[in-house]
Amino acid sequence: MATQDDLGHGRWKDLSIGFEEALARLPEALKKEGFGIITQIDIQETFKAKLGADFRRYRIFGACNPSFAHAALQKDPRVGVLLPCNVVLYEKDDGKAVVGAVDPMQTLGASGDAGGLADLARDVGERLERVLAGLPA
Amino acid sequence: MATQDDLGHGRWKDLSIGFEEALARLPEALKKEGFGIITQIDIQETFKAKLGADFRRYRIFGACNPSFAHAALQKDPRVGVLLPCNVVLYEKDDGKAVVGAVDPMQTLGASGDAGGLADLARDVGERLERVLAGLPA
Repeated sequence: MATQDDLGHGRWKDLSIGFEEALARLPEALKKEGFGIITQIDIQETFKAKLGADFRRYRIFGACNPSFAHAALQKDPRVGVLLPCNVVLYEKDDGKAVVGAVDPMQTLGASGDAGGLADLARDVGERLERVLAGLPA
Repeated sequence: MATQDDLGHGRWKDLSIGFEEALARLPEALKKEGFGIITQIDIQETFKAKLGADFRRYRIFGACNPSFAHAALQKDPRVGVLLPCNVVLYEKDDGKAVVGAVDPMQTLGASGDAGGLADLARDVGERLERVLAGLPA
C-alpha cells in the first residue's frame, strides 16, 4: 500500500521490481488512468551533466490528463503552478524501485475548496493512487 | 509586487508587457537567479491537440537550479514530487501577461522543517520572488 510521506505532499510505494522494469511499466500504468507523460526529467543525467555529480537513477515524470487540466485551468488559471502531476521513480541501493506521486489533495486541496477544485483534486488523487497500486509491491 | 494567491501555493504578478515579450525575457530573468528551464509545456497547444479546445496562451516552465535540487534530493529523495519549481506565464484577455511561480515555502516549507529543507526552500523562494520582481509591472 502506498503511504503518505512526512513531507506532506506525496504518496510512496516500495516496489518488488527493479528500476528498469518499473520505468518500462509506468507509461502503461499511467495511461490506464487517463494520464499521458508530458514531461520527463532524468535527474541522474542532469546532475552528471550540470554538476559532474553521481546520483542514483531518478526520474521525474509530469503526468497530465488533458481533460482534468483543462477543467482545472478554466476554474482558475493559477492552478498551473501545481501542474502537471509529478510521478517519481527512483532506484534504491538494493536495485529495487520506489515510485511516488504528488497528492493533489495535499497540495491543491490543502486550502479548503479552493474555487471548486477539491472534487477534481480528489478524483486525480484517486487515479494516481491506483497507478501506484497497479505496480507490484 | 507579487502577491500570494488564495490557492496558497504560488505568487503572481500582473505584467505591463505582453505575453510574447514576457516569454522572451523569462529565460534570462531565471538565469540571473541560477535557474535553467528544464521542462516547458505549451498548454494552449496541448489542449488544442488533445481536446480540440481553444485556450488562452499559457506556458508552464519547470525551473531548476541543479545545485539546490541536488542538495534537496540528497536530504530526502522524496522531494522530487515537488521538483522542478513551476513558473507560469499566461496571457490575459487584454493581451498583457501574468507571471506566477510556485512558492516553495508554502509547499515544501509547509510541514515545518521537513528534514532540514526549510532553509533551502526559503532561499529558492526568494530567488523566484526576485525573478518576478525583475519583470515589469
